[in-house]
Amino acid sequence: MSWKDKAAVYLPEVEKFLQEIVKEGEGELSRHYGMMRYHMGWADENLRPAVASTGKRLRPLLCLLSCEALGGEWREAIPAAAALELVHNFSLVHDDIQDRSPFRRHRPTVWKLWGEALAINVGDALLILACKALGELPLSKFKECCQILNEACLMLTEGQFLDLTFEKREKVSLEEYMEMIKRKTAALMAASAQMGAVIATEERGVIERLRRFGESLGMAFQVQDDILGLWGDEAVTGKPVADDLRQRKKTLPIIYAMEREPFLQSLLAGAEWGEKEVTEALEIINRCGAREFTENQALSFYRKALEELESLGLDSEAVQALKELASFIVGREY
Amino acid sequence: MSWKDKAAVYLPEVEKFLQEIVKEGEGELSRHYGMMRYHMGWADENLRPAVASTGKRLRPLLCLLSCEALGGEWREAIPAAAALELVHNFSLVHDDIQDRSPFRRHRPTVWKLWGEALAINVGDALLILACKALGELPLSKFKECCQILNEACLMLTEGQFLDLTFEKREKVSLEEYMEMIKRKTAALMAASAQMGAVIATEERGVIERLRRFGESLGMAFQVQDDILGLWGDEAVTGKPVADDLRQRKKTLPIIYAMEREPFLQSLLAGAEWGEKEVTEALEIINRCGAREFTENQALSFYRKALEELESLGLDSEAVQALKELASFIVGREY
Repeated sequence: MSWKDKAAVYLPEVEKFLQEIVKEGEGELSRHYGMMRYHMGWADENLRPAVASTGKRLRPLLCLLSCEALGGEWREAIPAAAALELVHNFSLVHDDIQDRSPFRRHRPTVWKLWGEALAINVGDALLILACKALGELPLSKFKECCQILNEACLMLTEGQFLDLTFEKREKVSLEEYMEMIKRKTAALMAASAQMGAVIATEERGVIERLRRFGESLGMAFQVQDDILGLWGDEAVTGKPVADDLRQRKKTLPIIYAMEREPFLQSLLAGAEWGEKEVTEALEIINRCGAREFTENQALSFYRKALEELESLGLDSEAVQALKELASFIVGREY
Repeated sequence: MSWKDKAAVYLPEVEKFLQEIVKEGEGELSRHYGMMRYHMGWADENLRPAVASTGKRLRPLLCLLSCEALGGEWREAIPAAAALELVHNFSLVHDDIQDRSPFRRHRPTVWKLWGEALAINVGDALLILACKALGELPLSKFKECCQILNEACLMLTEGQFLDLTFEKREKVSLEEYMEMIKRKTAALMAASAQMGAVIATEERGVIERLRRFGESLGMAFQVQDDILGLWGDEAVTGKPVADDLRQRKKTLPIIYAMEREPFLQSLLAGAEWGEKEVTEALEIINRCGAREFTENQALSFYRKALEELESLGLDSEAVQALKELASFIVGREY
């Protein structure tokens, strides 16, 4: 069974649980819950039931596969898997407001359709529902999972703070960038694997290895995303080529190139920023080996993740599926 | 000992706990936590330690007094008290963005100083820290307190949704308004008394009575706030006379008057809204007995709250203090 076969078994159960947590709502309140259901991919702009893109539900998969890989009963981990997905979606709803993003998964964002005030509130409610979902875990695992999720959420806000402040800075070091993505992206993937492990076992060393597996995988995922943001094919990513550069985001390859090419830094900080400057900047980035550097970084985090997994000395079907999921996460088309 | 003497003992302990939860933060992140500390009243605009207004910390007081009134050890309830205050403050930070309020407790709001994006993130972090605070409760009380807090938070988002949508509607019924404030204001005060009770006792009937006491008190508190928002003395409230009316908020006395005076409804919905219209509207509101009606509502919720408390048949110092706190909450100067 590949990870996709596993996903075909797991995800409908996760979705069912999620749909019960993000309830329909009655009367006037059906609009409040309807907006959440829209964002989750279950309703259209008129808040009528619909099937839209839900995203890949990677965090639930990581959680359930980690649980099963350690011999746990994956069904017990469903509330944790759902909570992780709800936290991820809370952060997307708020990110979209903060970044003024008009689209998410090929549809208008919540704030774009219903305004910022209601969108802030929708994000808040999704975060609270995540905490509520954990209440369905076995009692013996409840407190530890709460703590793991809280810490991951707090790191998420720290990462978001750093990301927002980096936008306003002229220079960001590679180390600072790594600290940012560790919080903004890797922390929740670390928590996903860790919570799956906590539900399966009490062995501290094993749980810690799964946490590190998820963290390294999260780092690899973000670095890979940075590669796609610069060199990704529009047909695959759904975004224009070099989109991150157009938006003057300071991603890993751009930071690497800025450290080597002072002119790139002044170009990016300049008042002029049109097609000509984007092309010029991309040439500089390509010339100084930023792509090779970034690909090596992604590969190195991916290998670190696999090493953590292999150090467990397990070789079940679920472990195999987890490895496959990891390479899918990192090896996406570009 | 009056409630103020109790507060003088309790609140420094709550503040100490809060200051440990909302930590200083290191390096770059000290600004993230600094903004939270600014909002909590412990830092100035430059994020240096300062003593500013913290608000009255009513919810912690309600929680700790409820615990002690039932014979519980109030110190055990400190994490719950802190969590309630953090949830209250999370909601204020997000409310201020949603309402575009420039001031809070006589200082510029977080979004006004540092922008909306960072302010959304500050609110998110305060909510997460509230969940984290509960982790310090005795394990036997942890899960129930999590559930109570989650439900109250969810009701808060429901109340906020209703409040935001009422702004855009021409007409709101008294029943709809009551449902809104039950969620937006009363739910967290209900949770405050309920959590204090849960920590003190396992008697379901007693816990439920305290919950209803807090809920009725919260309703009285909000209705009283509506009275101040129309007829409050500027020197006391710090806001201009008839501020709610100036902002065309649909508060209880205004809704009452609109139901009786159709002209008020068209006046409030009209394009013209200046000093002349405000004066005219206030005359209509005063004429139709809205003040008497609203004061009777506040009194009736207050009496309901006291009845719940008296039905317990207890008469300790803490019960006395709780009654005094209740009358302070409702009987504020106007």
